Amino acid sequence: MININENFLKLQAGYLFPEIGRRVSAFSKANPDAEIIKLGIGDVTEPLAPAVIKTMHAAVDEMSRAGTFHGYDESGRGYDFLIDAIIENDYAVHGLKIDRSEVFISDGSKCDTGNLQEIFGLDNVVAVADPVYPVYVDTNVMAGRTGPADSSGRYGKIVYMSCTADNNFVPELPAESVDLIYLCFPNNPTGAVATKKQLAEWVEYALKHKAIILFDAAYEAFISDPALPHSIYEIDRAKEIAVEFRSFSKTAGFTGVRCAFAIVPKELKAYKADGGTCEVNPMWARRHCTKFNGVSYITQAGAAAVYTAEGKKQVRKTIELYMGNAAHILGGLCDLGYEVYGGVNAPYVWLKTPAGVSSWDFFDRVLEKAHVVGTPGVGFGAAGQGYLRLSAFNKPENVKEAVRRFEKV
Amino acid sequence: MININENFLKLQAGYLFPEIGRRVSAFSKANPDAEIIKLGIGDVTEPLAPAVIKTMHAAVDEMSRAGTFHGYDESGRGYDFLIDAIIENDYAVHGLKIDRSEVFISDGSKCDTGNLQEIFGLDNVVAVADPVYPVYVDTNVMAGRTGPADSSGRYGKIVYMSCTADNNFVPELPAESVDLIYLCFPNNPTGAVATKKQLAEWVEYALKHKAIILFDAAYEAFISDPALPHSIYEIDRAKEIAVEFRSFSKTAGFTGVRCAFAIVPKELKAYKADGGTCEVNPMWARRHCTKFNGVSYITQAGAAAVYTAEGKKQVRKTIELYMGNAAHILGGLCDLGYEVYGGVNAPYVWLKTPAGVSSWDFFDRVLEKAHVVGTPGVGFGAAGQGYLRLSAFNKPENVKEAVRRFEKV
Repeated sequence: MININENFLKLQAGYLFPEIGRRVSAFSKANPDAEIIKLGIGDVTEPLAPAVIKTMHAAVDEMSRAGTFHGYDESGRGYDFLIDAIIENDYAVHGLKIDRSEVFISDGSKCDTGNLQEIFGLDNVVAVADPVYPVYVDTNVMAGRTGPADSSGRYGKIVYMSCTADNNFVPELPAESVDLIYLCFPNNPTGAVATKKQLAEWVEYALKHKAIILFDAAYEAFISDPALPHSIYEIDRAKEIAVEFRSFSKTAGFTGVRCAFAIVPKELKAYKADGGTCEVNPMWARRHCTKFNGVSYITQAGAAAVYTAEGKKQVRKTIELYMGNAAHILGGLCDLGYEVYGGVNAPYVWLKTPAGVSSWDFFDRVLEKAHVVGTPGVGFGAAGQGYLRLSAFNKPENVKEAVRRFEKV
Repeated sequence: MININENFLKLQAGYLFPEIGRRVSAFSKANPDAEIIKLGIGDVTEPLAPAVIKTMHAAVDEMSRAGTFHGYDESGRGYDFLIDAIIENDYAVHGLKIDRSEVFISDGSKCDTGNLQEIFGLDNVVAVADPVYPVYVDTNVMAGRTGPADSSGRYGKIVYMSCTADNNFVPELPAESVDLIYLCFPNNPTGAVATKKQLAEWVEYALKHKAIILFDAAYEAFISDPALPHSIYEIDRAKEIAVEFRSFSKTAGFTGVRCAFAIVPKELKAYKADGGTCEVNPMWARRHCTKFNGVSYITQAGAAAVYTAEGKKQVRKTIELYMGNAAHILGGLCDLGYEVYGGVNAPYVWLKTPAGVSSWDFFDRVLEKAHVVGTPGVGFGAAGQGYLRLSAFNKPENVKEAVRRFEKV
């Protein structure tokens, strides 16, 4: 008799975005003339850069001729032309040394941040920020590392690190010893960033507790402050304790193309039941190459074009467009008297709802009065209650109109 | 202290293909003038069909304009234009009814067959054929469903079903009760096929034992005998007990493009610890949408072009080229007095080595004497000892030359 993985039954009902979709479509039906502006789900709106398009066309043509056709990416880990571009442009320019064998090309940071936990034991204590990107939590629930949820939706065995205005949305070090720590900076959903000093404290904690940090840097391209770290490896000894995730999704508008990468340093160790140590890199290589078969050649070629001189310029222009949107949301809502966070080094603005108004009530109010869709903060965790996330991914004219309409809320 | 997943330590050293690569590269170094013909790893050699190329160019252009740009595939399960083409052309034409909600577009059958086990409990008894595609076994080892391996590489808790010339490489029903059964027809590596009657026996077994069959039909397009089933759903009541995997990799040369799909019927049930039943489809949907974020729009557009009138014709022509190769290998080796199997409804020929010669010894001999690379049968399991797999994926002139050279072996 085939038994289900009982851990799946512990998952809290409904992923956030389907519920948003349901409410928006109900409102839309009742108000067919309302022009809804979506600042909810963090999907990009600008097309791919011309340099990427040009290279993808060339790659498609290569696939049309036997002499230049590409079958399996035999290593399963990505083509050297892309790996080398990443090493040079994302790391070497910042003085960071990354080896080819430490780079794993994948089809998305959602997949990478969701899958990486599989190589670790089920008895590790997981720590996540609250609010948090739900994938970190849900994949640990599925694996059986969390225990059941309580009435607030929190899982008993997870250590939640509250992020509030008091700590500038950067979690404090846990008082207890934790083993697997998910950090995301610039942060989704709060738009918060961590300084080098703050990351250094985390690296020190992980070294002391023999923990591993899974560092999600999917939004690093949106950092404008030159003092802020783009990579956790800018911190001394971080290669001993951290995996880093990066993505082309937001950097280069690849949400519909699917390309990302993880850095798994050779220095990274985990521990065996017999007390010995075990290198994490070959473990991840084994997992990656057994349950995954590489990224489309056409996609990898396009991703490499992001690092050409013209690609960089084009991609930067789009990021500046989005960050102009973020500044406009931030400034506009501030002028209206709202308490707002993020939006300076990240494409998300984290808006405090008026006193006593819940995330979902405010979501409904904004939808009804302004015809604008945000994302209820509580959807990202209990500490997100009383917040609404607004995304900067939209056309500037839509963002301006959305901010104008907030006067009616 | 971060602990490793100890199950990974149970994995048998080295995936098969790296070892082949090592031996081929050593031989190549020692014999720089030898023109090696690779009939080893099952990668396609023919370029993508013109209809696919044309549609991919159009899709790339769509991604270059804001009005036609595609971001996230919001459902995460694939675009309806591709799902509908699959339902119509792969199922409806055979009188099989598949609902949109039962189709999950993915980036490969390796991923699907590797990931699907995650939604089931760890106490299920897994049954695999021997020889077998290693991914089925390795992913269950990683999950912790197998126990340690013995000296022959077999895992204690897995039920191995020997496939030999005696049973025409179609496994017999297990005497014991098993819960999760991996079947692959047309088979990789043996090239064997199952009749409707044989599949019906498996469906009956699964119904009786409340088991689930994971049916890998990645090679169904190579079936030439009209009496053979292309889908397990051609068997009455199979939707109650089977998941089916299909891929564009071999059907349409998508190994370097990455697109496949799984059918998870709504009728499919698994059992809960409390004795109740649980629908498998929503469980897989939750897993699929949490740890995966959809397939590239460009890839999905290209896959849909496989189902157009011209796409079908072009893809069929390529399959016929490969099957001509298979027939040539089969006939040529037969003439040389070898015992050979498969190759009629599958792109693989399963060659019995001369009496007493091991798979690896014969691999070395073929490499040295004929400069041809095969895949040692024992790499697919203990029952593959004394066999060599030859792939039909190559240029016809190379295949002809390879067969000629076998005279020297």
